[in-house]
Amino acid sequence: MRIPDHIGVIPDGNRRWALSHGLTREKGYASGLKPGLEVFKLCKKVGVKELTFYGFTMDNTKRPSTQTEAFTKACIDAVEMLSREDASLLVVGNTESPKFPRELLKYTRKRHKFGKGGLKVNFLVNYGWHWDLYNLKQKKVKKSKLQKYLNSSDISRVDLIIRWGGRRRLSGFLPVQSIYADFYVIDDYWPDFKPEHFYEALAWYDKQDITLGG
Amino acid sequence: MRIPDHIGVIPDGNRRWALSHGLTREKGYASGLKPGLEVFKLCKKVGVKELTFYGFTMDNTKRPSTQTEAFTKACIDAVEMLSREDASLLVVGNTESPKFPRELLKYTRKRHKFGKGGLKVNFLVNYGWHWDLYNLKQKKVKKSKLQKYLNSSDISRVDLIIRWGGRRRLSGFLPVQSIYADFYVIDDYWPDFKPEHFYEALAWYDKQDITLGG
Repeated sequence: MRIPDHIGVIPDGNRRWALSHGLTREKGYASGLKPGLEVFKLCKKVGVKELTFYGFTMDNTKRPSTQTEAFTKACIDAVEMLSREDASLLVVGNTESPKFPRELLKYTRKRHKFGKGGLKVNFLVNYGWHWDLYNLKQKKVKKSKLQKYLNSSDISRVDLIIRWGGRRRLSGFLPVQSIYADFYVIDDYWPDFKPEHFYEALAWYDKQDITLGG
Repeated sequence: MRIPDHIGVIPDGNRRWALSHGLTREKGYASGLKPGLEVFKLCKKVGVKELTFYGFTMDNTKRPSTQTEAFTKACIDAVEMLSREDASLLVVGNTESPKFPRELLKYTRKRHKFGKGGLKVNFLVNYGWHWDLYNLKQKKVKKSKLQKYLNSSDISRVDLIIRWGGRRRLSGFLPVQSIYADFYVIDDYWPDFKPEHFYEALAWYDKQDITLGG
Protein backbone atom coordinates (compact mmCIF):
# COMPACT_ATOMS: atom_id res chain seq x y z
CA MET A 1 0.00 0.00 0.00
CA ARG A 2 1.24 3.47 -0.93
CA ILE A 3 1.34 5.55 2.26
CA PRO A 4 1.24 9.35 2.04
CA ASP A 5 4.36 11.05 3.37
CA HIS A 6 2.40 13.99 4.70
CA ILE A 7 -1.18 14.02 5.98
CA GLY A 8 -3.13 17.18 6.79
CA VAL A 9 -5.98 16.90 9.27
CA ILE A 10 -8.93 19.31 9.40
CA PRO A 11 -10.64 18.27 12.63
CA ASP A 12 -14.02 19.87 12.05
CA GLY A 13 -17.37 19.34 13.70
CA ASN A 14 -16.51 19.89 17.39
CA ARG A 15 -19.27 22.46 17.87
CA ARG A 16 -21.89 20.47 16.01
CA TRP A 17 -20.91 17.41 18.05
CA ALA A 18 -21.41 19.38 21.28
CA LEU A 19 -24.84 20.62 20.18
CA SER A 20 -25.88 17.10 19.17
CA HIS A 21 -24.98 15.98 22.71
CA GLY A 22 -27.00 18.73 24.36
CA LEU A 23 -23.89 20.73 25.27
CA THR A 24 -23.03 24.32 24.44
CA ARG A 25 -20.81 24.77 21.41
CA GLU A 26 -17.52 25.43 23.17
CA LYS A 27 -17.78 22.15 25.05
CA GLY A 28 -16.84 20.21 21.93
CA TYR A 29 -13.18 21.10 21.70
CA ALA A 30 -11.92 19.11 24.68
CA SER A 31 -13.38 16.00 23.07
CA GLY A 32 -11.12 16.54 20.10
CA LEU A 33 -7.92 15.91 22.06
CA LYS A 34 -8.04 12.14 22.25
CA PRO A 35 -8.75 11.74 18.50
CA GLY A 36 -5.69 13.87 17.79
CA LEU A 37 -3.47 11.57 19.80
CA GLU A 38 -5.01 8.53 18.11
CA VAL A 39 -4.33 9.91 14.63
CA PHE A 40 -0.77 10.70 15.67
CA LYS A 41 -0.24 7.11 16.82
CA LEU A 42 -1.81 5.66 13.69
CA CYS A 43 0.47 7.81 11.54
CA LYS A 44 3.52 6.47 13.36
CA LYS A 45 2.24 2.94 12.99
CA VAL A 46 1.80 3.06 9.21
CA GLY A 47 4.91 5.13 8.48
CA VAL A 48 3.60 8.62 7.71
CA LYS A 49 6.48 11.09 8.02
CA GLU A 50 4.72 14.39 8.62
CA LEU A 51 1.33 15.31 10.08
CA THR A 52 -0.25 18.75 10.09
CA PHE A 53 -3.21 19.61 12.32
CA TYR A 54 -5.44 22.58 11.65
CA GLY A 55 -5.66 24.06 15.15
CA PHE A 56 -7.38 27.41 14.78
CA THR A 57 -7.21 30.26 12.32
CA MET A 58 -7.16 34.03 12.53
CA ASP A 59 -10.65 33.86 10.98
CA ASN A 60 -11.81 31.63 13.85
CA THR A 61 -10.75 34.16 16.48
CA LYS A 62 -13.67 36.38 15.51
CA ARG A 63 -16.01 33.95 17.27
CA PRO A 64 -17.46 34.57 20.76
CA SER A 65 -14.83 34.49 23.52
CA THR A 66 -16.29 31.38 25.19
CA GLN A 67 -15.40 29.54 21.98
CA THR A 68 -12.02 31.15 21.31
CA GLU A 69 -10.94 30.47 24.89
CA ALA A 70 -12.05 26.85 24.62
CA PHE A 71 -10.26 26.11 21.34
CA THR A 72 -7.12 27.93 22.44
CA LYS A 73 -7.03 25.85 25.61
CA ALA A 74 -7.55 22.69 23.57
CA CYS A 75 -4.51 23.58 21.44
CA ILE A 76 -2.34 24.13 24.51
CA ASP A 77 -3.58 20.87 26.02
CA ALA A 78 -2.90 19.03 22.76
CA VAL A 79 0.74 20.13 22.81
CA GLU A 80 1.01 19.15 26.47
CA MET A 81 -0.34 15.72 25.54
CA LEU A 82 2.06 15.40 22.61
CA SER A 83 5.00 16.35 24.82
CA ARG A 84 4.72 12.94 26.46
CA GLU A 85 5.23 11.17 23.11
CA ASP A 86 8.15 10.84 20.71
CA ALA A 87 7.57 13.58 18.15
CA SER A 88 9.11 16.58 16.49
CA LEU A 89 6.78 19.57 16.84
CA LEU A 90 6.54 22.86 14.99
CA VAL A 91 3.78 25.35 15.74
CA VAL A 92 3.02 27.65 12.79
CA GLY A 93 0.90 30.76 12.98
CA ASN A 94 0.81 34.50 13.49
CA THR A 95 2.61 35.08 16.79
CA GLU A 96 2.36 38.87 16.54
CA SER A 97 -1.20 38.91 17.79
CA PRO A 98 -2.57 38.63 21.33
CA LYS A 99 -4.69 35.73 20.07
CA PHE A 100 -1.60 33.57 19.85
CA PRO A 101 -1.19 31.57 23.09
CA ARG A 102 2.09 32.52 24.82
CA GLU A 103 2.48 28.98 26.09
CA LEU A 104 3.18 27.81 22.53
CA LEU A 105 5.60 30.55 21.47
CA LYS A 106 8.67 28.45 22.16
CA TYR A 107 7.58 25.87 19.58
CA THR A 108 7.34 28.37 16.73
CA ARG A 109 11.00 29.24 16.24
CA LYS A 110 12.32 25.84 15.36
CA ARG A 111 11.19 22.26 15.41
CA HIS A 112 11.07 20.97 19.00
CA LYS A 113 12.00 17.40 19.84
CA PHE A 114 9.81 15.55 22.34
CA GLY A 115 11.25 12.28 23.66
CA LYS A 116 13.20 10.61 20.88
CA GLY A 117 11.70 12.89 18.23
CA GLY A 118 10.57 11.20 15.03
CA LEU A 119 7.28 11.95 13.25
CA LYS A 120 7.12 15.64 12.32
CA VAL A 121 3.98 17.23 13.69
CA ASN A 122 2.96 20.69 12.51
CA PHE A 123 0.29 22.46 14.43
CA LEU A 124 -1.39 25.48 12.83
CA VAL A 125 -2.28 27.91 15.61
CA ASN A 126 -3.67 31.36 14.86
CA TYR A 127 -2.86 30.58 11.24
CA GLY A 128 -4.14 32.69 8.35
CA TRP A 129 -3.79 32.04 4.66
CA HIS A 130 -3.15 35.73 3.90
CA TRP A 131 -0.62 35.84 6.74
CA ASP A 132 1.03 32.79 5.17
CA LEU A 133 1.29 34.31 1.70
CA TYR A 134 2.29 37.72 2.94
CA ASN A 135 6.05 37.48 2.55
CA LEU A 136 6.12 36.56 -1.11
CA LYS A 137 8.28 39.13 -2.76
CA GLN A 138 8.43 39.45 -6.46
CA LYS A 139 11.96 40.23 -7.42
CA LYS A 140 13.99 37.87 -5.36
CA VAL A 141 11.75 34.83 -5.68
CA LYS A 142 12.49 32.23 -8.31
CA LYS A 143 9.24 30.63 -9.35
CA SER A 144 10.43 27.19 -8.38
CA LYS A 145 11.42 28.47 -4.95
CA LEU A 146 8.19 30.25 -4.15
CA GLN A 147 7.35 27.93 -1.30
CA LYS A 148 10.48 29.02 0.59
CA TYR A 149 9.02 32.49 1.03
CA LEU A 150 5.87 31.36 2.73
CA ASN A 151 5.48 31.97 6.43
CA SER A 152 4.78 28.23 6.57
CA SER A 153 7.90 27.38 4.58
CA ASP A 154 8.97 24.66 7.02
CA ILE A 155 5.86 22.69 6.19
CA SER A 156 6.22 20.50 3.11
CA ARG A 157 3.74 19.65 0.35
CA VAL A 158 0.69 17.79 1.69
CA ASP A 159 -0.21 14.49 0.01
CA LEU A 160 -3.54 13.72 1.65
CA ILE A 161 -5.91 16.01 3.52
CA ILE A 162 -8.54 14.35 5.68
CA ARG A 163 -11.39 16.55 6.85
CA TRP A 164 -13.88 15.41 9.45
CA GLY A 165 -17.37 16.89 9.83
CA GLY A 166 -18.61 16.61 6.25
CA ARG A 167 -17.62 19.98 4.82
CA ARG A 168 -15.94 19.75 1.44
CA ARG A 169 -13.69 22.79 1.48
CA LEU A 170 -10.20 23.71 2.55
CA SER A 171 -11.18 26.76 4.64
CA GLY A 172 -7.77 28.35 4.15
CA PHE A 173 -5.69 25.29 5.07
CA LEU A 174 -2.16 25.78 3.66
CA PRO A 175 -3.20 26.89 0.17
CA VAL A 176 0.20 26.40 -1.42
CA GLN A 177 1.13 23.07 0.17
CA SER A 178 -2.38 21.77 -0.64
CA ILE A 179 -2.21 22.56 -4.37
CA TYR A 180 -1.87 18.90 -5.40
CA ALA A 181 -3.23 17.25 -2.25
CA ASP A 182 -5.91 14.59 -2.49
CA PHE A 183 -8.84 15.58 -0.33
CA TYR A 184 -10.87 13.05 1.61
CA VAL A 185 -13.95 13.98 3.62
CA ILE A 186 -15.41 12.03 6.51
CA ASP A 187 -18.96 12.88 7.45
CA ASP A 188 -18.64 12.02 11.14
CA TYR A 189 -17.70 14.82 13.51
CA TRP A 190 -14.11 14.91 14.73
CA PRO A 191 -14.91 13.94 18.35
CA ASP A 192 -16.52 10.78 16.93
CA PHE A 193 -13.19 9.75 15.40
CA LYS A 194 -12.68 6.03 14.81
CA PRO A 195 -9.51 4.33 13.50
CA GLU A 196 -11.65 3.04 10.61
CA HIS A 197 -11.89 6.63 9.31
CA PHE A 198 -8.13 6.81 9.02
CA TYR A 199 -7.80 3.45 7.30
CA GLU A 200 -10.67 4.27 4.95
CA ALA A 201 -8.87 7.47 3.91
CA LEU A 202 -5.61 5.59 3.37
CA ALA A 203 -7.34 2.93 1.28
CA TRP A 204 -8.91 5.64 -0.87
CA TYR A 205 -5.60 7.47 -1.24
CA ASP A 206 -3.94 4.27 -2.36
CA LYS A 207 -6.25 4.19 -5.39
CA GLN A 208 -5.48 7.75 -6.54
CA ASP A 209 -2.98 8.52 -9.24
CA ILE A 210 -0.31 11.07 -8.40
CA THR A 211 0.33 13.50 -11.23
CA LEU A 212 1.33 16.69 -9.41
CA GLY A 213 -0.58 18.59 -12.04
CA GLY A 214 1.28 17.00 -14.98
CA MET B 1 -32.62 27.83 -3.58
CA ARG B 2 -29.37 29.63 -2.85
CA ILE B 3 -27.45 29.91 -6.12
CA PRO B 4 -23.67 30.40 -6.06
CA ASP B 5 -22.53 33.69 -7.58
CA HIS B 6 -19.39 32.15 -8.96
CA ILE B 7 -18.83 28.56 -10.11
CA GLY B 8 -15.45 27.08 -10.97
CA VAL B 9 -15.36 24.12 -13.35
CA ILE B 10 -12.54 21.58 -13.47
CA PRO B 11 -13.41 19.60 -16.59
CA ASP B 12 -11.29 16.53 -15.96
CA GLY B 13 -11.37 13.05 -17.48
CA ASN B 14 -11.09 13.84 -21.19
CA ARG B 15 -8.15 11.48 -21.70
CA ARG B 16 -9.64 8.67 -19.65
CA TRP B 17 -12.87 9.10 -21.58
CA ALA B 18 -10.97 8.77 -24.88
CA LEU B 19 -9.19 5.60 -23.72
CA SER B 20 -12.46 4.10 -22.52
CA HIS B 21 -13.84 4.67 -26.04
CA GLY B 22 -10.87 3.02 -27.75
CA LEU B 23 -9.42 6.36 -28.85
CA THR B 24 -5.99 7.78 -28.24
CA ARG B 25 -5.78 10.17 -25.28
CA GLU B 26 -5.68 13.45 -27.19
CA LYS B 27 -8.96 12.64 -28.92
CA GLY B 28 -10.89 13.38 -25.74
CA TYR B 29 -10.56 17.14 -25.68
CA ALA B 30 -12.83 17.94 -28.62
CA SER B 31 -15.63 16.10 -26.84
CA GLY B 32 -15.32 18.56 -23.95
CA LEU B 33 -16.52 21.52 -26.00
CA LYS B 34 -20.22 20.81 -26.02
CA PRO B 35 -20.37 20.22 -22.24
CA GLY B 36 -18.72 23.60 -21.73
CA LEU B 37 -21.42 25.35 -23.72
CA GLU B 38 -24.10 23.44 -21.84
CA VAL B 39 -22.72 24.46 -18.46
CA PHE B 40 -22.53 28.05 -19.65
CA LYS B 41 -26.19 27.97 -20.67
CA LEU B 42 -27.27 26.34 -17.42
CA CYS B 43 -25.42 29.01 -15.44
CA LYS B 44 -27.29 31.73 -17.32
CA LYS B 45 -30.56 29.95 -16.75
CA VAL B 46 -30.23 29.69 -12.97
CA GLY B 47 -28.63 33.10 -12.45
CA VAL B 48 -24.98 32.38 -11.78
CA LYS B 49 -22.99 35.60 -12.30
CA GLU B 50 -19.47 34.33 -12.96
CA LEU B 51 -18.10 31.08 -14.34
CA THR B 52 -14.45 30.03 -14.44
CA PHE B 53 -13.23 27.15 -16.61
CA TYR B 54 -9.92 25.42 -15.98
CA GLY B 55 -8.57 25.28 -19.53
CA PHE B 56 -4.97 24.13 -19.25
CA THR B 57 -2.08 24.82 -16.91
CA MET B 58 1.61 25.44 -17.29
CA ASP B 59 2.03 22.04 -15.60
CA ASN B 60 -0.09 20.43 -18.34
CA THR B 61 2.15 21.76 -21.11
CA LYS B 62 4.84 19.24 -20.13
CA ARG B 63 2.73 16.50 -21.71
CA PRO B 64 3.43 15.02 -25.18
CA SER B 65 2.84 17.49 -28.01
CA THR B 66 -0.07 15.51 -29.51
CA GLN B 67 -1.90 16.24 -26.26
CA THR B 68 -0.80 19.85 -25.78
CA GLU B 69 -1.79 20.65 -29.35
CA ALA B 70 -5.18 19.03 -28.89
CA PHE B 71 -6.07 20.82 -25.65
CA THR B 72 -4.77 24.15 -26.95
CA LYS B 73 -6.98 23.79 -30.02
CA ALA B 74 -9.94 22.88 -27.81
CA CYS B 75 -9.45 26.11 -25.83
CA ILE B 76 -9.35 28.19 -28.99
CA ASP B 77 -12.44 26.41 -30.32
CA ALA B 78 -14.24 26.94 -27.01
CA VAL B 79 -13.71 30.70 -27.23
CA GLU B 80 -14.86 30.66 -30.85
CA MET B 81 -18.01 28.84 -29.72
CA LEU B 82 -18.60 31.29 -26.87
CA SER B 83 -18.19 34.26 -29.23
CA ARG B 84 -21.57 33.38 -30.72
CA GLU B 85 -23.27 33.76 -27.32
CA ASP B 86 -23.96 36.68 -25.00
CA ALA B 87 -21.07 36.62 -22.55
CA SER B 88 -18.28 38.67 -21.07
CA LEU B 89 -14.98 36.82 -21.46
CA LEU B 90 -11.64 37.17 -19.75
CA VAL B 91 -8.77 34.80 -20.52
CA VAL B 92 -6.28 34.52 -17.64
CA GLY B 93 -2.87 32.89 -17.88
CA ASN B 94 0.81 33.35 -18.54
CA THR B 95 0.99 35.07 -21.91
CA GLU B 96 4.77 35.42 -21.83
CA SER B 97 5.31 31.86 -22.96
CA PRO B 98 5.13 30.32 -26.45
CA LYS B 99 2.63 27.83 -24.99
CA PHE B 100 0.03 30.58 -24.77
CA PRO B 101 -2.12 30.53 -27.94
CA ARG B 102 -1.76 33.84 -29.81
CA GLU B 103 -5.37 33.65 -30.95
CA LEU B 104 -6.48 34.29 -27.37
CA LEU B 105 -4.12 37.16 -26.51
CA LYS B 106 -6.69 39.82 -27.21
CA TYR B 107 -8.99 38.46 -24.51
CA THR B 108 -6.38 38.72 -21.76
CA ARG B 109 -6.06 42.48 -21.44
CA LYS B 110 -9.59 43.31 -20.47
CA ARG B 111 -12.96 41.63 -20.29
CA HIS B 112 -14.35 41.19 -23.82
CA LYS B 113 -18.05 41.52 -24.56
CA PHE B 114 -19.62 38.97 -26.91
CA GLY B 115 -23.12 39.83 -28.13
CA LYS B 116 -24.97 41.62 -25.34
CA GLY B 117 -22.38 40.59 -22.74
CA GLY B 118 -23.76 39.34 -19.44
CA LEU B 119 -22.45 36.29 -17.58
CA LYS B 120 -18.76 36.73 -16.80
CA VAL B 121 -16.74 33.83 -18.13
CA ASN B 122 -13.13 33.40 -17.05
CA PHE B 123 -11.02 30.95 -18.97
CA LEU B 124 -7.73 29.82 -17.43
CA VAL B 125 -5.30 29.19 -20.28
CA ASN B 126 -1.64 28.38 -19.62
CA TYR B 127 -2.42 29.22 -16.01
CA GLY B 128 -0.04 28.38 -13.16
CA TRP B 129 -0.58 28.80 -9.44
CA HIS B 130 3.00 30.02 -8.93
CA TRP B 131 2.61 32.40 -11.81
CA ASP B 132 -0.61 33.63 -10.19
CA LEU B 133 0.97 34.28 -6.78
CA TYR B 134 4.15 35.72 -8.19
CA ASN B 135 3.34 39.41 -7.93
CA LEU B 136 2.55 39.51 -4.26
CA LYS B 137 4.84 42.11 -2.77
CA GLN B 138 5.22 42.43 0.90
CA LYS B 139 5.49 46.09 1.66
CA LYS B 140 2.77 47.64 -0.37
CA VAL B 141 0.14 44.96 0.15
CA LYS B 142 -2.42 45.42 2.90
CA LYS B 143 -3.48 41.99 4.11
CA SER B 144 -7.09 42.64 3.25
CA LYS B 145 -6.10 43.66 -0.28
CA LEU B 146 -3.88 40.70 -1.03
CA GLN B 147 -6.16 39.42 -3.76
CA LYS B 148 -5.62 42.59 -5.79
CA TYR B 149 -1.98 41.66 -6.34
CA LEU B 150 -2.68 38.29 -7.87
CA ASN B 151 -2.15 37.85 -11.56
CA SER B 152 -5.73 36.59 -11.53
CA SER B 153 -6.99 39.62 -9.60
CA ASP B 154 -9.92 40.16 -11.96
CA ILE B 155 -11.37 36.83 -10.93
CA SER B 156 -13.48 36.98 -7.79
CA ARG B 157 -13.84 34.53 -4.90
CA VAL B 158 -15.25 31.18 -6.05
CA ASP B 159 -18.32 29.84 -4.21
CA LEU B 160 -18.60 26.37 -5.70
CA ILE B 161 -16.05 24.30 -7.58
CA ILE B 162 -17.36 21.35 -9.57
CA ARG B 163 -14.79 18.84 -10.72
CA TRP B 164 -15.63 16.09 -13.18
CA GLY B 165 -13.65 12.84 -13.51
CA GLY B 166 -13.62 11.73 -9.87
CA ARG B 167 -10.37 13.28 -8.61
CA ARG B 168 -10.76 15.05 -5.30
CA ARG B 169 -8.10 17.72 -5.54
CA LEU B 170 -7.76 21.27 -6.78
CA SER B 171 -4.67 20.70 -8.96
CA GLY B 172 -3.60 24.31 -8.65
CA PHE B 173 -6.97 25.86 -9.52
CA LEU B 174 -6.98 29.49 -8.26
CA PRO B 175 -5.60 28.77 -4.78
CA VAL B 176 -6.56 32.13 -3.31
CA GLN B 177 -10.04 32.46 -4.77
CA SER B 178 -10.76 28.85 -3.79
CA ILE B 179 -9.88 29.27 -0.10
CA TYR B 180 -13.50 29.11 1.06
CA ALA B 181 -15.03 27.37 -1.96
CA ASP B 182 -17.24 24.34 -1.51
CA PHE B 183 -15.89 21.51 -3.61
CA TYR B 184 -18.15 19.03 -5.37
CA VAL B 185 -16.82 16.05 -7.29
CA ILE B 186 -18.62 14.19 -10.05
CA ASP B 187 -17.26 10.75 -10.89
CA ASP B 188 -18.29 10.78 -14.56
CA TYR B 189 -15.77 12.05 -17.07
CA TRP B 190 -16.29 15.58 -18.42
CA PRO B 191 -17.24 14.48 -21.97
CA ASP B 192 -20.06 12.47 -20.36
CA PHE B 193 -21.54 15.65 -18.90
CA LYS B 194 -25.27 15.61 -18.17
CA PRO B 195 -27.38 18.53 -16.91
CA GLU B 196 -28.22 16.35 -13.87
CA HIS B 197 -24.61 16.72 -12.73
CA PHE B 198 -24.99 20.47 -12.59
CA TYR B 199 -28.30 20.37 -10.74
CA GLU B 200 -26.96 17.75 -8.33
CA ALA B 201 -24.03 20.05 -7.48
CA LEU B 202 -26.38 23.01 -6.98
CA ALA B 203 -28.67 20.98 -4.72
CA TRP B 204 -25.67 19.93 -2.64
CA TYR B 205 -24.36 23.50 -2.47
CA ASP B 206 -27.75 24.68 -1.26
CA LYS B 207 -27.35 22.52 1.85
CA GLN B 208 -23.91 23.86 2.81
CA ASP B 209 -23.42 26.57 5.39
CA ILE B 210 -21.35 29.56 4.35
CA THR B 211 -18.95 30.70 7.06
CA LEU B 212 -16.03 32.09 5.05
CA GLY B 213 -13.76 30.59 7.65
CA GLY B 214 -15.48 32.33 10.60
